[in-house]
Amino acid sequence: MRFVAVDWGTSRIRALLVDGTHVLARSESDDGVSRLQRGQHAAVFDRHCGAWLAGEPELPVVLVGMAGSREGWALAPYAACPAGAEEIAAALTRIDIGEGRTASIVPGLTMAGTAAADVMRGEETHLLGSGVRDGLVCLPGTHCKWALMQGGRVSSFATFLTGELYGLLREHSMVGRPAAEPADEAGFAEGFAASSFRGPAEGGLLNALFAARAGTLTGRLTPEKLGPYLSGLLTGEEIAGAFRLYGRPGQVTVVADPPRADLYVCALRAEGIAVTVRAQEETLLAGLGAILKYRPA
Amino acid sequence: MRFVAVDWGTSRIRALLVDGTHVLARSESDDGVSRLQRGQHAAVFDRHCGAWLAGEPELPVVLVGMAGSREGWALAPYAACPAGAEEIAAALTRIDIGEGRTASIVPGLTMAGTAAADVMRGEETHLLGSGVRDGLVCLPGTHCKWALMQGGRVSSFATFLTGELYGLLREHSMVGRPAAEPADEAGFAEGFAASSFRGPAEGGLLNALFAARAGTLTGRLTPEKLGPYLSGLLTGEEIAGAFRLYGRPGQVTVVADPPRADLYVCALRAEGIAVTVRAQEETLLAGLGAILKYRPA
Repeated sequence: MRFVAVDWGTSRIRALLVDGTHVLARSESDDGVSRLQRGQHAAVFDRHCGAWLAGEPELPVVLVGMAGSREGWALAPYAACPAGAEEIAAALTRIDIGEGRTASIVPGLTMAGTAAADVMRGEETHLLGSGVRDGLVCLPGTHCKWALMQGGRVSSFATFLTGELYGLLREHSMVGRPAAEPADEAGFAEGFAASSFRGPAEGGLLNALFAARAGTLTGRLTPEKLGPYLSGLLTGEEIAGAFRLYGRPGQVTVVADPPRADLYVCALRAEGIAVTVRAQEETLLAGLGAILKYRPA
Repeated sequence: MRFVAVDWGTSRIRALLVDGTHVLARSESDDGVSRLQRGQHAAVFDRHCGAWLAGEPELPVVLVGMAGSREGWALAPYAACPAGAEEIAAALTRIDIGEGRTASIVPGLTMAGTAAADVMRGEETHLLGSGVRDGLVCLPGTHCKWALMQGGRVSSFATFLTGELYGLLREHSMVGRPAAEPADEAGFAEGFAASSFRGPAEGGLLNALFAARAGTLTGRLTPEKLGPYLSGLLTGEEIAGAFRLYGRPGQVTVVADPPRADLYVCALRAEGIAVTVRAQEETLLAGLGAILKYRPA
């Protein structure tokens, strides 16, 4: 099946003309939803996809990610987790994209029935395309997701602020200020070891973060190691949290491209956990294919 | 005893003309060490204290806080914890302040013998002046300190990034962006309850921080509650960490002024823990008095 897929994120838009799982053409820019005002989305869409649709007016169009968020083109209400391709397809939001055409926005997922709220937009599609029927999937990113798949459906998930907090610490904090480049990647393992992964870090993360500052002040931690140290500390905290929630797995599937995937692969394999890596575009297209199979006519 | 005390912090300088524990005169400005270049400290000191010393040339002068840091007037090497007033007095750094006079810089403390590095500058003086001979003392701030006093000496301490992380989240993060004023202080208890205080929060702090964002996105957490919620969450994590390190106490002394002290007092009393509050200027002067008693001639 040929279709147009638009992966519209906070900071980027990526439009793909797809045949099955094969990309025929692509168009990208930094017109993410955070840069756009209400009413500007249609023009951005046309700029990226107009030529393809002029040539093939009947192409299905599917939008995924932040396109359906409050800052997006139109609000696509979250589907409730647990959900599989069928439930997500049933919750697609149709919008008018002009010239008599409609596009479908993939809804995100929400953990509605649990004590802690959680949400995702876009990752549900990667999860459905991850090839994991039963098992744990990790999606690194600004807001890292860990999800438990059961019977090919997203059964439960949890989000960790890992990537955003790393950025805050590096760009705005006293802790990260002394960090120097080129980075000494040996710091990652040291930071990982200081996390709660091997057992409760007694003082907790707030104490471990200050210890990184104290380490640089006292010369125990070189400025070159500091960035990887903070990355290792936060990654270890995240993995420890995911394992407390879902149990320690024998195998994890990581959906990410290098170099971000590499950090998780190294950290998990060092713990004796088997890791399968799937590239993000591959899981996006496989996930959209699965959803489109159930798309209401 | 009459003396001049200068509490030189990162963002403020506060100079006091003291008689015992009584403040005779004071002079403050925002010339904290972070604003000054090497070589500028003497002039700032003169502007604040010159008139007092002109009138009483023999007054002892003692500097405390960031005056002895790398960005300060002169580096005052940390004393090693455990330490009491006698050890800290023995580690005072003398500097020339002109006209044949010297001043003493109070050294900070470092936890040298432990796995995790930790440091303080200034809090050691408040601890010695806290009136606590044996027990747990909490010093809220950008970098909150908890210290165990034994026999009137600082036996052990741990620092938590609570205040700085709260600021990062409020000013720079996606999590804190929706926060609205006037704040609804009921959010503090909700955030405290979401911390690991009552038992391990399964997903850990990185997960709990994102849950605050998901809560606002899904309408479970109002924008007015968000700021106090984050404050409660981080405060709960900090107190939980301190109690894991030092055991759950029956009584805690908090060295802080309102409104910051109030947050800790309410949170701790709600847990059935007795709280004594000491004002910062009172503990500063009592601590300096204790150190000066042992000052080498």
